[in-house]
Amino acid sequence: MALKTLAPAKAADLDKELMSSGGFSLDQLMELAGLSVAEAAYRVHPPSKGKSVLVACGPGNNGGDGLVAARHLHHFGYKPTIYYPVPSKPELFVGLQKQLKSLSITFTEDFHSSMKSTDFIIDAIFGFSFKPPVREPFPSVVEALAETSKPVLSVDSPSCWDVEGGPPKEGELGAKFMPPYLISLTAPKPSIRFYKGTHFVGGRFLSEDMAQKYDLTVPDYQGVDQIVEAPVDAPGGEKL
Amino acid sequence: MALKTLAPAKAADLDKELMSSGGFSLDQLMELAGLSVAEAAYRVHPPSKGKSVLVACGPGNNGGDGLVAARHLHHFGYKPTIYYPVPSKPELFVGLQKQLKSLSITFTEDFHSSMKSTDFIIDAIFGFSFKPPVREPFPSVVEALAETSKPVLSVDSPSCWDVEGGPPKEGELGAKFMPPYLISLTAPKPSIRFYKGTHFVGGRFLSEDMAQKYDLTVPDYQGVDQIVEAPVDAPGGEKL
Repeated sequence: MALKTLAPAKAADLDKELMSSGGFSLDQLMELAGLSVAEAAYRVHPPSKGKSVLVACGPGNNGGDGLVAARHLHHFGYKPTIYYPVPSKPELFVGLQKQLKSLSITFTEDFHSSMKSTDFIIDAIFGFSFKPPVREPFPSVVEALAETSKPVLSVDSPSCWDVEGGPPKEGELGAKFMPPYLISLTAPKPSIRFYKGTHFVGGRFLSEDMAQKYDLTVPDYQGVDQIVEAPVDAPGGEKL
Repeated sequence: MALKTLAPAKAADLDKELMSSGGFSLDQLMELAGLSVAEAAYRVHPPSKGKSVLVACGPGNNGGDGLVAARHLHHFGYKPTIYYPVPSKPELFVGLQKQLKSLSITFTEDFHSSMKSTDFIIDAIFGFSFKPPVREPFPSVVEALAETSKPVLSVDSPSCWDVEGGPPKEGELGAKFMPPYLISLTAPKPSIRFYKGTHFVGGRFLSEDMAQKYDLTVPDYQGVDQIVEAPVDAPGGEKL
């Protein structure tokens, strides 16, 4: 298993560089990241398998990716429901919520009830900048994600995992959390070495120069796809 | 032929509404519009038919869509060249140019020389807000587009066409311009009734409510596609 990974501090540097000398706005990067999340959901759980998708969004950019994904999922024919208990204040996030409301998408305050009736779950709670512990109101949500038998797609890192160190230890919150699906944005994070499941990479905006600078590989995307499957157990991670 | 069309003044209102009560930023709308242009190019002219794409960008938002499309085309495996003689000053446009330069994409000042060696051309010069006459330095470019036998994809409206009235009259500049491919953004413009060629609709962000309000139909996009082919001669335009 030798996928090239991007440590959290480097991921932050890369984002910063994309948004300064790279010329990107956060709006653009989040749009493409969220679109890739929605494409991954479609790949593993097309609407024919059940249209109800619960999107759990955290307070940071990972949550924003979830909001964008939810909009695309609506247009792809799903019925998303959003759990977004700690809404972010910047204009971009206010706008993303407005977009969803103008599509008559439901916001729920009760993750647990909504989970019972959903077909698929997107975990966009914490991303590469997460550091334990999990703060309120998310501990019971993480616990529910760890226990559920419903399919979960985690965005960038399974929420509650230490992005470098991997899953929580036995007995700790979310110790059993191993979502069947994971999409890494730009590049896998170091904790990917503990992941067992179906893994995608998304965020089709990495230039060859930036990849080289950060010791990454530009994923081998096909056609107009915004995602590519990248098996975590492939020797050399050749699909990346 | 009864595709529901969107008159220029209504198109401006719709954009304005998307960016106020709709919660969108121009960055987001342009990202999705440009991505759909790139997907249309891929559909009709995949890289296997020739990777060299010349993207002619005008001074307004249509040109911005072209810049976004060029970035995606690079990631799709093409070698785009940009003709952007009147660069727009707002930060978004400066950023889009930076993104292209950081991908080492060539900007040309000589459209005509570049046209000789290209495989495919994207006409992102004028969009729905265009009013004749064609201003410098674009008249010779429009004339070249009208004369060339190379495949051209026009964005939203063939540049030099009156968006309501249709193509220029015989003897006028660009009178013969009938690009083989056209992608309408959000909805076809009234001049579509004069169009003969392969037509797509893109910009997968129109809500059912907005469509109803503007007397449009949400196009019947499939899967995760950002475009849909919408034959202009279909009775009732049923593919829309």
